[in-house]
Amino acid sequence: MGRWEPGARGRLAKAALELFAEQGFEATTTAEVAKLAGLTERTFFRHFADKREALFYGMEGTGELLVRAIADAPPTATPMEAVDAALHTVGAIIQEYPERARLLDAAVSAHPELKERELIKLAELAATMAGALRDRGVGEPAASLTADAGMAVYRVAFARWTSEPGEPDLPGMLRESMAELRGMLAA
Amino acid sequence: MGRWEPGARGRLAKAALELFAEQGFEATTTAEVAKLAGLTERTFFRHFADKREALFYGMEGTGELLVRAIADAPPTATPMEAVDAALHTVGAIIQEYPERARLLDAAVSAHPELKERELIKLAELAATMAGALRDRGVGEPAASLTADAGMAVYRVAFARWTSEPGEPDLPGMLRESMAELRGMLAA
Repeated sequence: MGRWEPGARGRLAKAALELFAEQGFEATTTAEVAKLAGLTERTFFRHFADKREALFYGMEGTGELLVRAIADAPPTATPMEAVDAALHTVGAIIQEYPERARLLDAAVSAHPELKERELIKLAELAATMAGALRDRGVGEPAASLTADAGMAVYRVAFARWTSEPGEPDLPGMLRESMAELRGMLAA
Repeated sequence: MGRWEPGARGRLAKAALELFAEQGFEATTTAEVAKLAGLTERTFFRHFADKREALFYGMEGTGELLVRAIADAPPTATPMEAVDAALHTVGAIIQEYPERARLLDAAVSAHPELKERELIKLAELAATMAGALRDRGVGEPAASLTADAGMAVYRVAFARWTSEPGEPDLPGMLRESMAELRGMLAA
């Protein structure tokens, strides 16, 4: 989730993802990452504490983005509409960098350890969204339920987006998945 | 999630949870667990490969239980009704052993590493439920969305159940949380 920076940091993160996807996370050394980026290993460690940090580069700002979008939703928005708006904000950014998202997905899918890290990351983001809803005056358990259900919508939409051929549209898939969930619960 | 067995295995698991909750997972040795259960460390290792296995003892059967309940739901049940019935089956069993559930919760809450393991376990159970829904002919993304949303309902209900004083009712909280989520999505 996030943009490539044009500088050394962005190049290192991109090289890391390419190598992780190609040869696995464990098998990749920071020296190889630096070499592919045309930089030294020392430069790598000036930008990242370790390989894992390079993997999730760009996701640091996601929580903040979600919080701001939920806070900025109009006062008339329902909690789920606020969450929906926040997911669309993030989805639109990811949509701009499909190559990055697919590399991350390929690296994560191939590695149970990275899958676990991603799962934890998403759970943390859901908790962050629940907090932002409580700041809007939404009570519990409504806040946590809405945030968790929203995260389920995101995960399913993202999985479809990375697996479908052609140029699928992540915001569109978020919309479809949300409509689908509403339908599943309307019965 | 599950019953204490009266034999050595059940006694060891109970002793393990008590010590994990009291002094933490890392600080607890298998020798201490065996001693509290009135058994030898050799007996511990006849029943469990390691401490972690003792922690999640009783959860092994949960996936199977969920699958069976979803398969056994009447053909007229909607996917979410089938998931709801499955969660109630598991909730009713947990409700019978509140002490076990609270010890597990205390141990898990105190330890980030165990929290992560639990998160992964719950994600696996959600994937298992999605599979059981597909076996009923539910397509994707409906199956995954329904299973994930159901798991969100379970997590919120369980958290309320373990944190409320007195003798709260887990199946009742599952009902309330499901109704709440329906309400959040109905807007």
